[in-house]
Amino acid sequence: MNETVTDWEPAYARRAARMSSSEIRELLKLLDQPDIISFAGGIPDPALFPREEAGNAYQTIMGDPTRANAALQYSTSEGYLPLREWISSYMTRLGANCDPDNIVVTSGSQQALDFLARLLVSPGDTALVDWPTYLGALQAFNAYEPRYDRIEFGATNRTPESYAEAASEAMAGGRVKFAYVVPDFANPTGRTLTEAERLSLLDLAGELDIPVIEDGAYAALRYDGTPVPPVIAMDAARTGHVDGARTIYCGTFSKTLTPGLRVGWICAARPIVKRLVLVKQASDLNSPLLNQVVMHQLAESVFDRQVTASIACYRERRDRMRAALDRHMPEGVTWTSPEGGIFLWLTLPEGFDGAELLARAVAEEKLAFVPGRAFFADGTGANTLRLSFSLANPEQIETGIAALARLIRG
Amino acid sequence: MNETVTDWEPAYARRAARMSSSEIRELLKLLDQPDIISFAGGIPDPALFPREEAGNAYQTIMGDPTRANAALQYSTSEGYLPLREWISSYMTRLGANCDPDNIVVTSGSQQALDFLARLLVSPGDTALVDWPTYLGALQAFNAYEPRYDRIEFGATNRTPESYAEAASEAMAGGRVKFAYVVPDFANPTGRTLTEAERLSLLDLAGELDIPVIEDGAYAALRYDGTPVPPVIAMDAARTGHVDGARTIYCGTFSKTLTPGLRVGWICAARPIVKRLVLVKQASDLNSPLLNQVVMHQLAESVFDRQVTASIACYRERRDRMRAALDRHMPEGVTWTSPEGGIFLWLTLPEGFDGAELLARAVAEEKLAFVPGRAFFADGTGANTLRLSFSLANPEQIETGIAALARLIRG
Repeated sequence: MNETVTDWEPAYARRAARMSSSEIRELLKLLDQPDIISFAGGIPDPALFPREEAGNAYQTIMGDPTRANAALQYSTSEGYLPLREWISSYMTRLGANCDPDNIVVTSGSQQALDFLARLLVSPGDTALVDWPTYLGALQAFNAYEPRYDRIEFGATNRTPESYAEAASEAMAGGRVKFAYVVPDFANPTGRTLTEAERLSLLDLAGELDIPVIEDGAYAALRYDGTPVPPVIAMDAARTGHVDGARTIYCGTFSKTLTPGLRVGWICAARPIVKRLVLVKQASDLNSPLLNQVVMHQLAESVFDRQVTASIACYRERRDRMRAALDRHMPEGVTWTSPEGGIFLWLTLPEGFDGAELLARAVAEEKLAFVPGRAFFADGTGANTLRLSFSLANPEQIETGIAALARLIRG
Repeated sequence: MNETVTDWEPAYARRAARMSSSEIRELLKLLDQPDIISFAGGIPDPALFPREEAGNAYQTIMGDPTRANAALQYSTSEGYLPLREWISSYMTRLGANCDPDNIVVTSGSQQALDFLARLLVSPGDTALVDWPTYLGALQAFNAYEPRYDRIEFGATNRTPESYAEAASEAMAGGRVKFAYVVPDFANPTGRTLTEAERLSLLDLAGELDIPVIEDGAYAALRYDGTPVPPVIAMDAARTGHVDGARTIYCGTFSKTLTPGLRVGWICAARPIVKRLVLVKQASDLNSPLLNQVVMHQLAESVFDRQVTASIACYRERRDRMRAALDRHMPEGVTWTSPEGGIFLWLTLPEGFDGAELLARAVAEEKLAFVPGRAFFADGTGANTLRLSFSLANPEQIETGIAALARLIRG
């Protein structure tokens, strides 16, 4: 009776229907071809990695039997205390007064997004997101089967009640459970929320009594313009401490030090952090201690230097990409002008299809970027593209944008 | 209107009610006290770690700029190909013929259990587990809100239909979604399923048309008795390949090489692996490549030696613990006699409470173990204890068991 499984589909949970492959990840495979110019992945330039310091840190720890044995053993789910201390000082420096107990270490901020949706969303609940928003966030959230509604910033007819009503109309008892934003140099648009927009977001969250999930992945990479405080800092300022804040901040070392060690964090009020430690425990017990110890050494020794070097490198590339776009793009194509981060967002005339353009770009010009549609929870945005300027060098940027303009001209 | 959150409870998803702290993890904190004798965590002895080889591997990789830059970058969700090749050869050696495409690397087998429940379980579906079973599996599964039913092995009145009927009675449309077992030297009982029991499990799974999740965490650590093939090997033998098997195998290097790097794997039919790669991508993008490269070097160079050394060390400790139990335990206390692994299971007379005994053991004897109740999905088992013999040395085992016997005698 023990026959072979021929069709696995019926075995899966309902949520599996919403798990799909990311075009970005598929595209990463293209990067193996050295002659491709890639504006695709949100990938830091490896030339910036603090390779030597990381190597030395591994050697120091592994050369000390006591530290090495601790690093090779199971460790605590909340994360390495000295690293949590560093992070809480850093968050306090950003204006969000907090303690190490307000921090849980995650395997990159992707895991933070997974954990938060797991903690907050029952199937059919509503998540407020921007249109477009970070594709990886939608992928993480989808496993918990939310419905999405669009946060509207600035002049809008939408009242807080309208969000709540739409949530309960979508499902009996359905509620809005959180608002997710990338307020600084957003993935994918490069856009930054003004202070007024952040305040109105906090007001909306207060009216709905929901947490705000602030994704600060790119916040350290500002090239010009006036810094805007993190949402969590504006929020915590009202009571003087993150414990009184409804904002939950997701941070990462991936864009400032290295993504390879997979170290990120969540900073939030203590009750939330306690819950997240349980989620971490059930998910993978703990992040590798060794990587956390090395990341702590890097944070202590080279964080500011790495941020400065990254800013210098990526600012030049952003400038090159803007200049090349100005020079080459035909009428009717528009793009954002980000003050930081690693993304620029291109809008083509109606009728263009980003996915088709990509297929031609790869085949005809050995050029890669990400079609914008995947960033829209409602599947619109076919005529948009995300361009990353972090990995290609200035010459490749010039060549690549010229090639893209040729393709758009047809 | 943006008031402070005073009560986070209403913010959480329904599933949060089932997330609770593990007594084991709380107990791990006790290990910081050096004078505690611990039979608690399922923790390998750090004296066995291949510290020098791991240190050399980190140094080699980080000393090579090209390899170091790759190791510090994002990498693929499915895992490092040479490591997947090693694992697929290893699984083939165990009798489960497979290819690297049948393998996805996870952050320990804890993450494997999380991913599998996420892929397979909709709320209210039924998971078949042993009574008792691995507490960490229950914690991982709980996030996806299954109902549990008890797998009965050996002489039983339960028919396959009775499991399916109980599942659909529990919830309209509810189905049995998988059976989870630790067939070799189980956590927590140390028990091994016979070949006949494994065959009958496969028959049951065939009748119900469900996957079997085989947790092989301890399988490499056999001290005596006759090896029994892994369930996945018996299953794959019917078609000649894992692609035709309904068994999904979770493996880990945590008990043979080191748990600190958090490297485990799932071996399964290709359609399942493809789905799991999407789950991995949405969860944490990828496990740290550097740790995977180091683990691959360790697997290539010292796996057999480490297994041999671990077997010699833990066999002696098991023998010591059995001998001490024979010598010290009063009438009415019984225990299992595992042929491998790191756990022994003690049953006290009715009326004893393992949690109360633990409180006294810590206070009066500086001794730790895990009360058995947490391993029972139905909350029974108050009069049971799990004793791990992997961390305490032979003298501590003698002293600890004598102390435990004193406590039981009152």
